[in-house]
Amino acid sequence: MTEYDAVVIGAGLLGLSTAYYIKKMKPKKRVLVVDKMGAAGQGNTAKSAAMFRSFFYSRTNLALVDTTIECFKHVQKDLGIDLKLKWVGYLWLFSNEDYRWAEPVLKVMAERGLKHKVYDAHELSEKLKLRTHVTKDEDSKLMGLVDVDVGILIPKAGSIDIDSIVNFYESEFKRLGGEIRYNTKVESILVEPREPLGIPGEPYFWQDSTASGVKTNRGAIKAKKTIVAAGAWTAALLDPVGVDAHIKPKKRQLFSVRAETNALKELLWVKGFNPEGCMPFTILPKPRVYLKPALEENAFWFSYGDEFPRAFKLEDEPQPEENYYQYGIYQVAIKYFPQFAGSQPFTSWAGQYAMNTLDGQPVIFEENDLLVVGGASGSGNMKADAIGRIAASLYAGEEYAVLYGDKKFKVSDLSITQRRVEPEKLII
Amino acid sequence: MTEYDAVVIGAGLLGLSTAYYIKKMKPKKRVLVVDKMGAAGQGNTAKSAAMFRSFFYSRTNLALVDTTIECFKHVQKDLGIDLKLKWVGYLWLFSNEDYRWAEPVLKVMAERGLKHKVYDAHELSEKLKLRTHVTKDEDSKLMGLVDVDVGILIPKAGSIDIDSIVNFYESEFKRLGGEIRYNTKVESILVEPREPLGIPGEPYFWQDSTASGVKTNRGAIKAKKTIVAAGAWTAALLDPVGVDAHIKPKKRQLFSVRAETNALKELLWVKGFNPEGCMPFTILPKPRVYLKPALEENAFWFSYGDEFPRAFKLEDEPQPEENYYQYGIYQVAIKYFPQFAGSQPFTSWAGQYAMNTLDGQPVIFEENDLLVVGGASGSGNMKADAIGRIAASLYAGEEYAVLYGDKKFKVSDLSITQRRVEPEKLII
Repeated sequence: MTEYDAVVIGAGLLGLSTAYYIKKMKPKKRVLVVDKMGAAGQGNTAKSAAMFRSFFYSRTNLALVDTTIECFKHVQKDLGIDLKLKWVGYLWLFSNEDYRWAEPVLKVMAERGLKHKVYDAHELSEKLKLRTHVTKDEDSKLMGLVDVDVGILIPKAGSIDIDSIVNFYESEFKRLGGEIRYNTKVESILVEPREPLGIPGEPYFWQDSTASGVKTNRGAIKAKKTIVAAGAWTAALLDPVGVDAHIKPKKRQLFSVRAETNALKELLWVKGFNPEGCMPFTILPKPRVYLKPALEENAFWFSYGDEFPRAFKLEDEPQPEENYYQYGIYQVAIKYFPQFAGSQPFTSWAGQYAMNTLDGQPVIFEENDLLVVGGASGSGNMKADAIGRIAASLYAGEEYAVLYGDKKFKVSDLSITQRRVEPEKLII
Repeated sequence: MTEYDAVVIGAGLLGLSTAYYIKKMKPKKRVLVVDKMGAAGQGNTAKSAAMFRSFFYSRTNLALVDTTIECFKHVQKDLGIDLKLKWVGYLWLFSNEDYRWAEPVLKVMAERGLKHKVYDAHELSEKLKLRTHVTKDEDSKLMGLVDVDVGILIPKAGSIDIDSIVNFYESEFKRLGGEIRYNTKVESILVEPREPLGIPGEPYFWQDSTASGVKTNRGAIKAKKTIVAAGAWTAALLDPVGVDAHIKPKKRQLFSVRAETNALKELLWVKGFNPEGCMPFTILPKPRVYLKPALEENAFWFSYGDEFPRAFKLEDEPQPEENYYQYGIYQVAIKYFPQFAGSQPFTSWAGQYAMNTLDGQPVIFEENDLLVVGGASGSGNMKADAIGRIAASLYAGEEYAVLYGDKKFKVSDLSITQRRVEPEKLII
């Protein structure tokens, strides 16, 4: 049987980015990516809201995001690959009360060179026809909604076409000689003794054992290193070998509402916020329902990342819940944007975040020849380039990864045992 | 429907200790314990090796264990309840190489007043008929076994009758007016909005929601606080409400071998190590197979806590594996103790540890009126009294718990978000 140098489980964005950078750092290594789907990026990668922002308080988060975005810019501008980057910006709405804790954090970030622009309620109301004083009505108060008093526009933020960046990593990986097998579902991780004795039932516990590849629906694949980049499926693969990556799956839902009325078209194509001449990605006050301008389909994508009591639950085909829009998102949205009154989604879908329950930042570590890459908790796309480089540096045994723009990053900072991440103060 | 002040899920040792101390601190509160079994301590509590040692490097561990053991001594001596405490001691065997890292740790511990006695290979060989120089033979070398060069006897350690201590907490809890419902299986944790609006489908995400009791096979039980003390079942209960306590179930197996031959009787009843005049609980060199003197049944209990690749897996009735003894424990044991040649277990069983994958120390925290108590990773019995007091103090809103002997312990030190535990250097 062929033994690969590395087998990567998962042809999502993180798996492909990791595979590509391994191949780039170690061109002679035989690297195989396996995925149960028929093509790249067809799992939860495809379900993403596909937004990015280079705007985090945590310098760990910022390093991962900013180098990734700069790399994406470079791919589009210098390599001529259209990633459909749209710099629509993030517009983040606050009540005075919430802004009180955000303001000092934003001030520190401004000192670090992370720009934002402040709007008052009046400007927002004028430009967006936004109802800022929602607590005038009893319903809003019962729902616990709060007024919009301040808006923050983050310009270094926008949307990307996920398929294009997935295809970029996939084709570059293949160009370097990387191999991919689709329609190949990993059933389990193989474990073998480092020094086999040929006794039936090996490995026994007095033997030193290690991961040695994967068992798939198409047979076993042996590899010196087994790299788990399986997103929401991480724990399902690691539990059977007793490794906890502190990654749990959580459903996230998106609802797409067409800009059918004049009022909604005006909102979608509002001028003055960004070079696209459209509404920015907008985050309402707590509960933080958000809406994205989906320009290609003349629509808004609505979502909300609910926490307690949303289950950690692995699902092959998670479904959007009609009531989640009807009694959840819609009820909140029309209080602020009456333009949406009567609007129904024309399509909706659900995916699964791979939540890292330690701190929400990515997890990259190795034990027993098993490398784990994941737990980006919904921001994997905007960190994909950096994560791939760090995982590849771990594979290559480097202490530091070199991120895009020659920024150094200590590989063990994203491990579990020597983890050193700066906490994020700015949770959108 | 009656609303309890607190419902405790699990009548294992930790659940009953917690329930008892809540009732003791807050006698007027209505406290209910529910368990799927027909009596107290019938789950994994009953599967325990039932050993304890007041000998940990981590001052967190030591505080939990030492106060618990002192409390157990008090229960037996002053309250006249026979817990069958047997001070057999722990005999921990090392190769010179392993002892090199252990010695400085043991020295620090000795300075802190934790006594141990050192034996050399010759003494051990004489007293126990132990084969210390196992690497003489090829088989042992192939198996990766190492010689015994040093033995450490820890006198403040021994065994306890788990049933007796379970019964103590249960009867004290009931005496204070605590209620218990057996044969009551919790199917899920109830979640309700703090301020219900009477809309079907509540709670919606824009409502502030909280745990409000449990759904059982015998109907719903409402409670102001829901306390999860379900050991290995913790994640199965918490995943559906999206809470990660970093607790995973892992199988542990015990094999009981009768002291049938004269050689084994001599080993079991060897003099000079402890006041019982028996073999101490003995931990072989790496891989650390251990054997317990089970005096009442004239037997030795064998076990080994295997890590990678032993699965995290929840099982209702975990089974011991014949090969685990035959090709695992037995093969290791006879290299050091040839007296066991030909010995087969007359009984065996398996239970599940509730492993805390952060640091192996217990987890006690509250969020959304849900208290979680567990993750003691196999040392729950020897920490049960302290854990119960800390959990009850959390319930009562105290910053500090008062452990047995008036030792103060900061409640949040065992939480997840403000966790502050000293790492354990002495892993047996």
